[in-house]
Amino acid sequence: MGEPLTVGVDFGTLSGRAVVVRVRDGAELGSAVFEYPHAVLDETLPATGRALPPDWALQVPSDYVGVLRNAVPAALRDAGADPGDVIGVATDFTACTMVPTTADGTPLCELPEFAGNPHAYVKLWKHHSAQPQADRINELARARGEKWLPRYGGLISSEWEFAKALQVLEEAPEVYAAMRHWVEAADWIVWQLTGNYVRNACTAGYKGILQDGQYPSRDFLRELAPGFETFVADKLEHPLGRLGSRAGSLTAEAAAWTGLPEGIAVAVGNVDAHVTAPAAQAVEPGQMVAIMGTSTCHVMNGAELREVPGMCGVVDGGIVPGLWGYEAGQSGVGDIFGWFTEHFAHDGHEQLTRLAARQEIGEHGLVALDWHSGNRSVLVDHELSGVIVGQTLATRPEDVYRALLEATAFGTRKIIETFTAAGVPVTELIIAGGLVKNALLMQIYADVTNLPLSVIGSGQGPALGSAIHAAVAAGAYPDVRAAAAVMGSVERAVYRPEPAHVAAYDELYAEYTTLHDYFGRGGNDVMHRLAARRRAVAKGRS
Amino acid sequence: MGEPLTVGVDFGTLSGRAVVVRVRDGAELGSAVFEYPHAVLDETLPATGRALPPDWALQVPSDYVGVLRNAVPAALRDAGADPGDVIGVATDFTACTMVPTTADGTPLCELPEFAGNPHAYVKLWKHHSAQPQADRINELARARGEKWLPRYGGLISSEWEFAKALQVLEEAPEVYAAMRHWVEAADWIVWQLTGNYVRNACTAGYKGILQDGQYPSRDFLRELAPGFETFVADKLEHPLGRLGSRAGSLTAEAAAWTGLPEGIAVAVGNVDAHVTAPAAQAVEPGQMVAIMGTSTCHVMNGAELREVPGMCGVVDGGIVPGLWGYEAGQSGVGDIFGWFTEHFAHDGHEQLTRLAARQEIGEHGLVALDWHSGNRSVLVDHELSGVIVGQTLATRPEDVYRALLEATAFGTRKIIETFTAAGVPVTELIIAGGLVKNALLMQIYADVTNLPLSVIGSGQGPALGSAIHAAVAAGAYPDVRAAAAVMGSVERAVYRPEPAHVAAYDELYAEYTTLHDYFGRGGNDVMHRLAARRRAVAKGRS
Repeated sequence: MGEPLTVGVDFGTLSGRAVVVRVRDGAELGSAVFEYPHAVLDETLPATGRALPPDWALQVPSDYVGVLRNAVPAALRDAGADPGDVIGVATDFTACTMVPTTADGTPLCELPEFAGNPHAYVKLWKHHSAQPQADRINELARARGEKWLPRYGGLISSEWEFAKALQVLEEAPEVYAAMRHWVEAADWIVWQLTGNYVRNACTAGYKGILQDGQYPSRDFLRELAPGFETFVADKLEHPLGRLGSRAGSLTAEAAAWTGLPEGIAVAVGNVDAHVTAPAAQAVEPGQMVAIMGTSTCHVMNGAELREVPGMCGVVDGGIVPGLWGYEAGQSGVGDIFGWFTEHFAHDGHEQLTRLAARQEIGEHGLVALDWHSGNRSVLVDHELSGVIVGQTLATRPEDVYRALLEATAFGTRKIIETFTAAGVPVTELIIAGGLVKNALLMQIYADVTNLPLSVIGSGQGPALGSAIHAAVAAGAYPDVRAAAAVMGSVERAVYRPEPAHVAAYDELYAEYTTLHDYFGRGGNDVMHRLAARRRAVAKGRS
Repeated sequence: MGEPLTVGVDFGTLSGRAVVVRVRDGAELGSAVFEYPHAVLDETLPATGRALPPDWALQVPSDYVGVLRNAVPAALRDAGADPGDVIGVATDFTACTMVPTTADGTPLCELPEFAGNPHAYVKLWKHHSAQPQADRINELARARGEKWLPRYGGLISSEWEFAKALQVLEEAPEVYAAMRHWVEAADWIVWQLTGNYVRNACTAGYKGILQDGQYPSRDFLRELAPGFETFVADKLEHPLGRLGSRAGSLTAEAAAWTGLPEGIAVAVGNVDAHVTAPAAQAVEPGQMVAIMGTSTCHVMNGAELREVPGMCGVVDGGIVPGLWGYEAGQSGVGDIFGWFTEHFAHDGHEQLTRLAARQEIGEHGLVALDWHSGNRSVLVDHELSGVIVGQTLATRPEDVYRALLEATAFGTRKIIETFTAAGVPVTELIIAGGLVKNALLMQIYADVTNLPLSVIGSGQGPALGSAIHAAVAAGAYPDVRAAAAVMGSVERAVYRPEPAHVAAYDELYAEYTTLHDYFGRGGNDVMHRLAARRRAVAKGRS
């Protein structure tokens, strides 16, 4: 019998990753990845070859089970671990990713009568075609002055549980009628592991509009859409589980899939971004974790409930029990750099970064707005778009590239300032996610925010975070905070702001702010008009 | 003895082109090009290998004589013409391109003692390092309320005669002292052909600040710089020649160079853009010729003197004797398309144009400002820079390319509207220059300006225009207008505005105007601040 281990499993957009972690110190002993065989269904439905409309993004639940069957055993082998040493398993998932199921948790798409119906499949977080439903939810909530709306920065996303469910009701009432549970994939996978359906407090709050123990009222839902008034009672409401608590025990079937011992602890489900906070030891108020990848998700605990303009949400116990979990986001970050590099440059990221790194601040003469995917920070307006000011015939791709890096840093500073101004001060910025590798970007973030940048110690933060939750669920630590202190890891102040840079960026940030407010706060609504025209043309073509 | 012919010679930035034209109908019988052996000196001085500072652009006068010696005989051969049939020759030149000479017209750079002094060479039109001198001229003229300033849209260019001469005085007083004449290359070449120095009315007005028979006063010049007060009297003032009149007769030496008969008529010098108007039969008020290449020059006659904000100049007889010649410009057009294609796209112009042409108006969701080389239209601010608004992750290079084409069309519309509002109505737009070949661009200009686009018939408009002037100088026609009617050529209304497009572009033009005024008229001076920072960084580096 060796040292106690836990397994964390991170379910991403295209694959799932399992990691085997030593409970004593958080050492990552082995890991493995399993790519989803169906990846993302955004063009056709395999069962029928039927084309999907634009902005659809579906998944196949059996792919998730494939991760349990393949990545977990492979990670155990990679670790050279005795499965008998594993005392708990925990999972995190993309969110809001929704599975319509029967009473026993069978996904509707696995029933022969629904295999050809796209609404019976998993609606992935980036399924964006419920925007009309989201618009109506927001309009009505504003009109009725619903108290929950400010908890989400004033905007319920088309990605979340209510908009997606309403789309099912309105576009596929037969699927809606057959659906007994509308389940976060984060909880569905725990259901598969334990045989128990437990709804996790994180997604119920951030994605399910559960605030102060209440969902949106029957009255609100009735006014929103006839037939939707019983949605909460009939399909959504379910007992909650606190993060880090035990959802149940590993079933014999799941033990056979994974090679793990039957009966070990399985933690309540969680979300990839949120579970990263303890992996980076960021569980105290003021420690903001930025998970930087194609987009950036910011998570931070706060001691008090505050309403921060434009935040994605604030949820009691949404990150760790006992604190208010705040979430914010930038809808485009790495994907903006990738878009520019792919289409508007002849060099790759590495060479552009090398050339950009040689420049002094302001040498390129540019300032950009990072709204190529809209703005989910502070302004909360998905119709905003990118801007670049200052190009001359001497402007080169590395200049624009650097200006785009800087623009995303300005966007992060805008979020930090907004949180601080709302009474949720940010005292430390901790970076996780794929972009930590870019030293130029990191130094720019330090200089722009005038904060020392800490960096998560693990390259697989979410999976480590899940392993931490597994350890807590198994009783190895009294709570997430205690487990994070031992098993999490962070390097403090890896990048320090340089005073001369900070002063220079203060000036460029002032330019960013002026443009931000001009284009984003009604000074000039040109972006809305351009987007409306673009849509009208596209509609005329279809 | 065949039919009477004339020869027009167009001196461009990198080469000179001669064309042989039949006087009876303007038929272009043959042509030839001679590339300047020294091209543009912008890095080193060949005589010494000495490095030139930034923004310098020099030329070597013997290269111009090379055009006479090579291109003219070659054009005659190409035409299969009997040189004895040629009754006149005329030239046009880039402007303002200045030659410092001795009393007999010898360029100072040809004197051994000055061969190593860059200020003894020709300062090409795009020599931009006299900007500090131009700034002082403008500041003082504004302060003193000089009446000539509004005739130039409120701004004397660093490219023009006074700024460049003051730079010589201040940076190379020995060259200034040795210089007897400060000669437009347009007149220097005529001097070589005829042995006579005649100052043409076009450049004297547009580039030499000659208005109502007066140059800037001694008082003004004294206040500008001690020692400069005698500049006009000592170096500049000289008898003027009307456009199309005879400057003199071809000397024996020039006859030997060119193979043309000694004694034939040589016309007064002219400027490439202005001489294009008669080649396109655009000699009546309201007919605006846009010569579209890397930049665009607009020339138009008006019956009355009006002060148009931002115009490059208005000169009595500046295009044809008896009318007020107006000039306007866009400092970046084709060079913006070239810059984008070279650095920010993977496809060439042709493919980008093909992809852009498939789009409906507004489909790209973008609006751009075409100020990558500053703004020489209406705003007259060389520190302005480019803007693009509306980019998303779906934006592709062809989208930006089309938005840039459109932006330059909006820039042209802005000029047209400003002229019309100032009491100089534009009734027809005639396109000349290399960009006429781009049918997409032409249709965009027709749709944006809501004017039918006429297109010059000749592919070598300036040289044809010179040949027309040669015919007038030789007495074959009574005046330029009469000669243009026969020898010039234009296709009317080749591109017609489509009403649906006009309406759509009206809306996008409104967006352009809002951004134009916001960034260009003090709403947000960010471009000036970005440019100042860029300069400061560059200075810190040097």
